[in-house]
Amino acid sequence: MENGGSPMNQWRFKGNEELTQASAVTIRGVLNMLMENLNANETRPVIPLGHGDPSAFPSFRTTPFAEDAICAAVRTAKFNGYSSTVGIPPARRAVAEYLSKDLPYKLSPDDVFLTVGCTQALEAITTVLARPGANILLPRPGFPYYEARAAFSHLEVRHFDLVPEKDWEVDLAAVEALSDENTVAMVIINPGNPCGNVFKYEHLKKVAETARKLGILVIADEVYDHLTFGSNPFVPMGAFGSIVPVVTVGSISKRWIVPGWRLGWLVTNDPDGILMKQGIVDSIKGFLNITSDPATFIQGAVPQILENTPSDFFLKIVNTLRESAEICYNRSKEIPCITCPSKPEGSMFVMVKLNLSLLKGIKDDLDFCCKLAKEEAVIVLPGVAVGLKNWLRVTFAIEPSSLDDGLGRIKAFYHRHAKKQ
Amino acid sequence: MENGGSPMNQWRFKGNEELTQASAVTIRGVLNMLMENLNANETRPVIPLGHGDPSAFPSFRTTPFAEDAICAAVRTAKFNGYSSTVGIPPARRAVAEYLSKDLPYKLSPDDVFLTVGCTQALEAITTVLARPGANILLPRPGFPYYEARAAFSHLEVRHFDLVPEKDWEVDLAAVEALSDENTVAMVIINPGNPCGNVFKYEHLKKVAETARKLGILVIADEVYDHLTFGSNPFVPMGAFGSIVPVVTVGSISKRWIVPGWRLGWLVTNDPDGILMKQGIVDSIKGFLNITSDPATFIQGAVPQILENTPSDFFLKIVNTLRESAEICYNRSKEIPCITCPSKPEGSMFVMVKLNLSLLKGIKDDLDFCCKLAKEEAVIVLPGVAVGLKNWLRVTFAIEPSSLDDGLGRIKAFYHRHAKKQ
Repeated sequence: MENGGSPMNQWRFKGNEELTQASAVTIRGVLNMLMENLNANETRPVIPLGHGDPSAFPSFRTTPFAEDAICAAVRTAKFNGYSSTVGIPPARRAVAEYLSKDLPYKLSPDDVFLTVGCTQALEAITTVLARPGANILLPRPGFPYYEARAAFSHLEVRHFDLVPEKDWEVDLAAVEALSDENTVAMVIINPGNPCGNVFKYEHLKKVAETARKLGILVIADEVYDHLTFGSNPFVPMGAFGSIVPVVTVGSISKRWIVPGWRLGWLVTNDPDGILMKQGIVDSIKGFLNITSDPATFIQGAVPQILENTPSDFFLKIVNTLRESAEICYNRSKEIPCITCPSKPEGSMFVMVKLNLSLLKGIKDDLDFCCKLAKEEAVIVLPGVAVGLKNWLRVTFAIEPSSLDDGLGRIKAFYHRHAKKQ
Repeated sequence: MENGGSPMNQWRFKGNEELTQASAVTIRGVLNMLMENLNANETRPVIPLGHGDPSAFPSFRTTPFAEDAICAAVRTAKFNGYSSTVGIPPARRAVAEYLSKDLPYKLSPDDVFLTVGCTQALEAITTVLARPGANILLPRPGFPYYEARAAFSHLEVRHFDLVPEKDWEVDLAAVEALSDENTVAMVIINPGNPCGNVFKYEHLKKVAETARKLGILVIADEVYDHLTFGSNPFVPMGAFGSIVPVVTVGSISKRWIVPGWRLGWLVTNDPDGILMKQGIVDSIKGFLNITSDPATFIQGAVPQILENTPSDFFLKIVNTLRESAEICYNRSKEIPCITCPSKPEGSMFVMVKLNLSLLKGIKDDLDFCCKLAKEEAVIVLPGVAVGLKNWLRVTFAIEPSSLDDGLGRIKAFYHRHAKKQ
């Protein structure tokens, strides 16, 4: 015993089990584990098809206009102080104007709450809605951060399916069946992570009507807004704000390829003021009062970023994603053990089904991914991490040439493990 | 009823009362209320002596070296992606080296967790320590964000006094009396907010020994580290890490005058590995896995900021604070209804006692501050906001000339409200 002190069992503080558990199955955790499986002797570059962050790739470099906006804001020395907890007025105004362009009504700056990335917007709304006995409806497959935050807030999770045969539409009958008097909200991610789908206007309207009937609000995760390259245009859920209150969470992370800048928003689309009457708005402010804020100078740069980015930049990014999505879809057709139920139309991901019966010695999706990492230095996310076992989530947001290489390696992996006829 | 829809009482979501309550008595809330009391016809500039943010004042402008570091980091385009949830390695290393300069041992980068300002470091440690029935010992007067976060995490708060007659030292007998088998930690803020004191080495050692005896850890809030200008040097609590495990929370916010940059840290000073064995380190990582992170490029700028800031800048800031503290202390002696028990030696604040018996028509500290705002356009924080009713917390971190003006106006206010003899 050092220093003549207390033996271990007299220390009265100890760790919080819930924290360790709540964070147990995160995408990052699974990817880190796959990275540990890489062969130390591998000479080829690792092909990362598991992440949601293309910022390191030259084709996905953000626009110098955004970098300029940051530097200009810092140099004014006007943004070195604390921000108001809801965000600084010019940034709130800029986000309200930006989002209103796609809505049938004008958002007020008071509808906009700036957050430390979309991540914190998610934390805010799940924390706000949690109360003993309440439950929330989440999509499957989905984005496991919702599950992690719900678990931590003791908010019960119920899953509804996204239907692969119907371009990943919401199983609305399941939503109704799962809902009871303690259901507070449902989450819809559009454009879709992990499925790469883009919901149609008519379907989103039905989602809104269903939510209204059930008396629940809709959390619309639109962090991939405008990243669409197929036939369906992006429709913001806020367009249906007069049918049902919609809380939109988003950020500049994906459209500007700057997830590390941690600038997001939570926006209330609620022309009828229901969220205010139900105490939701006050709770959001209360949450923001007891948590930290996005860097003030990054907020200060928001008007310039949202208003002055040339459309060339957006076109370039979308075109690169379109090209990569094509490569991904077409080349996956050459890999018999992989089936892609629908061509990706948006976001940065696609879900593909694994046909294990065509493979020898591969137990499940996790085993597939571990061996793929080890043998081919390709990282793909096992579907179990997003709620669909024996599927895979493939990211196509990397250099098209690297993507092509990676899919070629997956094909080689298939041949090496194919059951002989 | 619009759109043939649900009447209000069928909406199943509602706000979270705890969130609204937990954030009810924050310093910002009280200051906002005082600001609302300002006289709309006032022509003189408002003198803000209630805040903890001097970044708007020319004498407190941050160093161009820090601005350069930010811009350089953004322009590399290497920091646009997600950070590891514990922080990027160069930043962790830089903080470890920076803090180790004042410690008798070397911190490892693994001891350093980067956070969204010291704010998030505080959130992390209170969330990690919370468990049903646990309690935490907080100083009175103190920093009410601890109370707000403890309330939200259902961590019971017990207050020990800082003793004005002893330069605001910790009442260690009270700490022992308050502690029981459910006490997990005590918080010490050094340099002191709101008291402006700097704890002596011998006293901090006794704090460490007391905590060890009680089996609790020490949370050392050192966000004002090195901002000392009196006879007591700054002694980091981590110096006693081999007596008792110390969790230090800090940031670049105060020393570099950039609270809006939201770059802080939680550091474990624990050569005997007790925090690891007790599961605290895993819980900290778990918390960071389910919360957002500081902007990656700001982390990227940290090595340059911590290593290359010229000492001139630090000297300039400390000298300005010394000058302002002198003005504050000396001029307060001219105001009979205010007593300053000890000259401030550090941080940006001083606590002064209000003698209401010398005033007519002033009910308490809150009333004093409301009327002072209205009549003199001077904002001072009522002590009730920090746990000491009928005291005031005065910020001296503003332009010395404005401070002088403000104290002159407080003197005029006294004369206007003085009881006639």
